[in-house]
Amino acid sequence: MSYGDVMTSKAPRSARSVERRAEILRATLEVIAERGYRGASLAAVAERVGLTQQGLLHHFPTKEALLVAVMAERDQWDAMPATRLRLDLLDQLVEYNAMRPGIVQTFSALLGESVTEGHPAREFFTERYEAVRANMAQVLRADYGERLPSGLTPERAAPLLVAVMDGLQYQWLLAPESVDMPAAFRDFLTLLGEGPGVSGG
Amino acid sequence: MSYGDVMTSKAPRSARSVERRAEILRATLEVIAERGYRGASLAAVAERVGLTQQGLLHHFPTKEALLVAVMAERDQWDAMPATRLRLDLLDQLVEYNAMRPGIVQTFSALLGESVTEGHPAREFFTERYEAVRANMAQVLRADYGERLPSGLTPERAAPLLVAVMDGLQYQWLLAPESVDMPAAFRDFLTLLGEGPGVSGG
Repeated sequence: MSYGDVMTSKAPRSARSVERRAEILRATLEVIAERGYRGASLAAVAERVGLTQQGLLHHFPTKEALLVAVMAERDQWDAMPATRLRLDLLDQLVEYNAMRPGIVQTFSALLGESVTEGHPAREFFTERYEAVRANMAQVLRADYGERLPSGLTPERAAPLLVAVMDGLQYQWLLAPESVDMPAAFRDFLTLLGEGPGVSGG
Repeated sequence: MSYGDVMTSKAPRSARSVERRAEILRATLEVIAERGYRGASLAAVAERVGLTQQGLLHHFPTKEALLVAVMAERDQWDAMPATRLRLDLLDQLVEYNAMRPGIVQTFSALLGESVTEGHPAREFFTERYEAVRANMAQVLRADYGERLPSGLTPERAAPLLVAVMDGLQYQWLLAPESVDMPAAFRDFLTLLGEGPGVSGG
């Protein structure tokens, strides 16, 4: 799940270093897609990108730092200006996510770790969710104005929208055969937008 | 988050061993409440219960096995017969969870780990969610019959109910000052039950 203008702050880097970093992130994405969260070791990424593990550590000091950078990069790629983001595009994002379980798994595992004491991904996720809730409120306001059909304000519906996306990912990752994530998400959009008696089918 | 009749299968054990196990689980709960997920080490639990770490390993071979047993035990304690469970009691469960961040943190961290390849908690969570979705469908059916006001069936609304509870926990753990978990969950119940124009305030 990714959307919005979330970005990690970065110290200035040389052009060569920026380029190398981008290569490493692409390689990590590939390794994640092929081998999942546990398979995405620093050793596997170093090998893919033609660096020694020592050389990789120069760019990313830990596996967590590397994965946080990948998630931040994905947020960049998936993002569109919040003013152009619409609810039906979120729907497409969920469909897209259902085709890349490795990334969703990595996101979900890292989110789980991030709530523990002093975890290196904690700050990233805390800031990310603050930004994502604000973006989702904007999206909901663009569709519904100051009140959703249920009477909720966009600010009160936003955390629910985000929670459903995240929560469905866990259920889907554990049982992809019995949880149809995109269909469930569309059901939630129905719930947000429709009144009683309107079928979601 | 816990509800329903979820239970891990257990091999027969002697009365002494069953008693010792229960003591260990109680001690683990205390350690979790005081020190959180990372602080709940096998060493800390062994010390609390007056066992050597070797002695503890006799009952629970890994930290993951111990924590899964604690979560299964919590499900037992929090559970009520699905026939007596009601939506408004879920609301109370969320309020109760908001007063025990250590447990919620442990649950959320373990859920995150469980989606990775071959994790020892994966089977527990997969079975748990299957049972929890079925229970929630029963609860929704008891309140709404075959169709919710939105037109969704209980079976289609159940995964959304579970997803919102889990997803809100992550947002709340990361930013307890800015996410009011019980209020957000009540907003979701409003969404489930109310039609357009009805204020959730």
